[in-house]
Amino acid sequence: MNQPANKNYQQLCEHFQNISHFEHLSALGDWDQAAMMPTGGGEARGAAMATLAKHIHSLKTAPMLEDTIAAAEQESLSGEQQANLREIRYQFQQANIVPGSLVEAKTKAAYHCEQAWREQRSQNDWQGFKPNLENVLALTKEEANIRAAALNISPYDALLDKFEPGMTSARLEQIFGGLKLWLPSLIEQVQDQQQHQPSYAIAQAASDAQALLSRDVMTLLEFDFNHGRLDTSSHPFCGGVPSDVRLTTRYDVADFTSGLMGVVHETGHAKYEQGLPHKWRGQPAGNARSMAIHESQSLFCEMQLGRGSAFLKQLQPQLKQRLDCNLSHEQLLNIYSKVSPGHIRVDADEVTYPCHILLRFEAEKAIVSNQLAVADLPDFWSQQMQSLLGINTDGDYKNGCMQDIHWAVGEMGYFPSYTLGAMYAAQFKAAIERQLGSIEDLVANGKLSTIMGWLNHNIWSKGSLLTTDELVQHATGDTLNPAHFKQHLIERYLP
Amino acid sequence: MNQPANKNYQQLCEHFQNISHFEHLSALGDWDQAAMMPTGGGEARGAAMATLAKHIHSLKTAPMLEDTIAAAEQESLSGEQQANLREIRYQFQQANIVPGSLVEAKTKAAYHCEQAWREQRSQNDWQGFKPNLENVLALTKEEANIRAAALNISPYDALLDKFEPGMTSARLEQIFGGLKLWLPSLIEQVQDQQQHQPSYAIAQAASDAQALLSRDVMTLLEFDFNHGRLDTSSHPFCGGVPSDVRLTTRYDVADFTSGLMGVVHETGHAKYEQGLPHKWRGQPAGNARSMAIHESQSLFCEMQLGRGSAFLKQLQPQLKQRLDCNLSHEQLLNIYSKVSPGHIRVDADEVTYPCHILLRFEAEKAIVSNQLAVADLPDFWSQQMQSLLGINTDGDYKNGCMQDIHWAVGEMGYFPSYTLGAMYAAQFKAAIERQLGSIEDLVANGKLSTIMGWLNHNIWSKGSLLTTDELVQHATGDTLNPAHFKQHLIERYLP
Repeated sequence: MNQPANKNYQQLCEHFQNISHFEHLSALGDWDQAAMMPTGGGEARGAAMATLAKHIHSLKTAPMLEDTIAAAEQESLSGEQQANLREIRYQFQQANIVPGSLVEAKTKAAYHCEQAWREQRSQNDWQGFKPNLENVLALTKEEANIRAAALNISPYDALLDKFEPGMTSARLEQIFGGLKLWLPSLIEQVQDQQQHQPSYAIAQAASDAQALLSRDVMTLLEFDFNHGRLDTSSHPFCGGVPSDVRLTTRYDVADFTSGLMGVVHETGHAKYEQGLPHKWRGQPAGNARSMAIHESQSLFCEMQLGRGSAFLKQLQPQLKQRLDCNLSHEQLLNIYSKVSPGHIRVDADEVTYPCHILLRFEAEKAIVSNQLAVADLPDFWSQQMQSLLGINTDGDYKNGCMQDIHWAVGEMGYFPSYTLGAMYAAQFKAAIERQLGSIEDLVANGKLSTIMGWLNHNIWSKGSLLTTDELVQHATGDTLNPAHFKQHLIERYLP
Repeated sequence: MNQPANKNYQQLCEHFQNISHFEHLSALGDWDQAAMMPTGGGEARGAAMATLAKHIHSLKTAPMLEDTIAAAEQESLSGEQQANLREIRYQFQQANIVPGSLVEAKTKAAYHCEQAWREQRSQNDWQGFKPNLENVLALTKEEANIRAAALNISPYDALLDKFEPGMTSARLEQIFGGLKLWLPSLIEQVQDQQQHQPSYAIAQAASDAQALLSRDVMTLLEFDFNHGRLDTSSHPFCGGVPSDVRLTTRYDVADFTSGLMGVVHETGHAKYEQGLPHKWRGQPAGNARSMAIHESQSLFCEMQLGRGSAFLKQLQPQLKQRLDCNLSHEQLLNIYSKVSPGHIRVDADEVTYPCHILLRFEAEKAIVSNQLAVADLPDFWSQQMQSLLGINTDGDYKNGCMQDIHWAVGEMGYFPSYTLGAMYAAQFKAAIERQLGSIEDLVANGKLSTIMGWLNHNIWSKGSLLTTDELVQHATGDTLNPAHFKQHLIERYLP
């Protein structure tokens, strides 16, 4: 019998397709526990998810993989197959570094910590949260040290690499160092300019009405409801799988503007997932490229499209119909362009947002290198907030170091992706405007689909077939260049 | 180092705990696809669930089990541990009979068939549904034949045994044969008696209001919302896991009475799950005893409690508050005691319901023994409905043989459990009334908790520690005795 010429590669594809089925269930379990699960279900779910994580890990470290990957690398493969094999090897290597027992222990600790955090955060209960966080971060540091030894890089770089392959703290310090040179004065200038802007009364809006508006906005952004849904959770996110993307948001009855833009943001993530290459579903090459590229898509949707004048104008009929809201689009534009230092990262405007990331970047580096104990985190937080944004968070854990879910679930090294994403988004905007003309004009002329088409062609449909640098180079003619972000902020906020 | 005296048994417990984690995910996937998942997510979900089913099957047939079970049977175990080991062996034997490839193929075919059925049923599309059903039933028959050969019983008995261990078609023919002797004339008598009863105008009720009423009713029945939730689906069911029970129902805006009693029914299932022994969570001994016992709990809740005068009286304030419903409890009692032959099994009253089961029992036996082709099912259905209930279903597939989900997902041999459950429920009622007094009086005197306590002590907390016959004997002093069901119907409908 004839064997196919690339039987080792085919065997790997089958194996990773199988892994993707378990990852599907993992995504479902994550979404459900955040959006649906009652509190009492947490313990059993945590145990089930830990067993699942361990099983996925065992599949990714199956003994046959080493030889099969080596053999596949000798086979005759197309360019895309080679890219898939590169991603397969990367996943295998990453998984092999960390023992399954640690994966299981960390999953269990993270579930426990997150479940308790929801209640603890609302009660500002730092003392209750602290031991859980210490437990999760001890396991995260253990992981960082194991990864660092295997990859011969620093422990923090080893965490960064999980979310943004190839990213280093040295490069980040350079990028963020650049930011620090101009951002504080920009914030000051914008605040000066905006100081005489009126503030607007925002009428109460029932959650049900906001949910209908959210669906309108998602429809406008061409979200495919046959392959996804929208629910609520205490921490908005985009989960699920490409064929069934699960978005969540939260509604503030007193102020619809935050939930509305939250939906636009998460829809950006969702569009990326729904646009990933069908041909590569279930294969590593079919995954989203990186967390920063993912964030670039949500931020593009929110910042480059959603907060623009033309898009806000298009929303007006729905705002009137669903919420009986009479704000003009100029007023909405002012609301959505307002720069104002605040406690909460996810509520921050585009200009002060990077300060929240700078703080977390410094804290993560210090925690992983044992220069900052969890017990000292609240003080560190308050000092940094004071110095970066003039805000004191003493005793206000809820709006300070307890506001985010990331560390509670052991995700350290993720935060920088947000600001890298903002930079990529600005760079994509510049490229689109060079190639297709002004985004504002395109939206105003009903050509949102043209913009979506560009993103689909250049980003979404590429999955992980290209490396991050190749992807960005291919789409924009350059690798990451933070100058576009500065340019974008100046154009929008100091016109 | 000292080994524990029952190390083989302990090893089995760990293994089955691990299996329960994957079964947790399977329950979640099933609930989600019925209650949450958009249609477009079905294909990927089906593939993931098939892989999961195959994995669970491989764990239940792990090569080490045979010897470990044999060794554990020589160890010194408590009575409860012995019961758990009996259930472990049973699961191992059951799983070993069927090859994993068949489990995977059947799961995939069932998901495909069910997904399509939802749309096809609403469109009365028998031609579209038929090939899918043929595919699922071909695999089900293959399973039946394999089981039959291994267990040395008939193929249909081999299917019955999956849901009701030890049940045979011979015993069912005897039980159902008894029913046929008195049920038709009872239906006639009741209809005669009820013919001059007035009919009642039922006001429209919005789904949201009905959902609030459902929560009220579940609260009245002491459902623990910290360990479960209620949603809607096109086919009501009770799923999830004991620590997080997922109920679904559906709301008919034109007639709230059906959805309301549907919630009472599913809450009966849920109470059983929530009451399963904590100590045995994740072990086979901690599972519900059988499908008929499960159905006895939902039917007890619906028929013995929910449709009783005292319970309906208690519901009145909520009916007024949530739906502005002014029906007196006597009127509600008439509505909920109305006997009227109809097309739909799940909407059938307690008296005509067994006729729907008799039909399905005959159809299943005929299909599994190749005496009835799927193509001839609609004719068979219409003839049987005509003869049992005087109803013609020619061309009305939607309200005929396409109404149920069971065959679409490959569950043949399940239907008899419904009527066995009704019989067990009546037998439990008789036992409670002998031991504690009239159920109507207990409910009227605010002692619903006393009834729940009896069920918890005698049924729920026993899990699978006893066999079905032991359980029923222990609770009622007798094994299954259909006379109680006849007695119950006569008392209620021919007072």
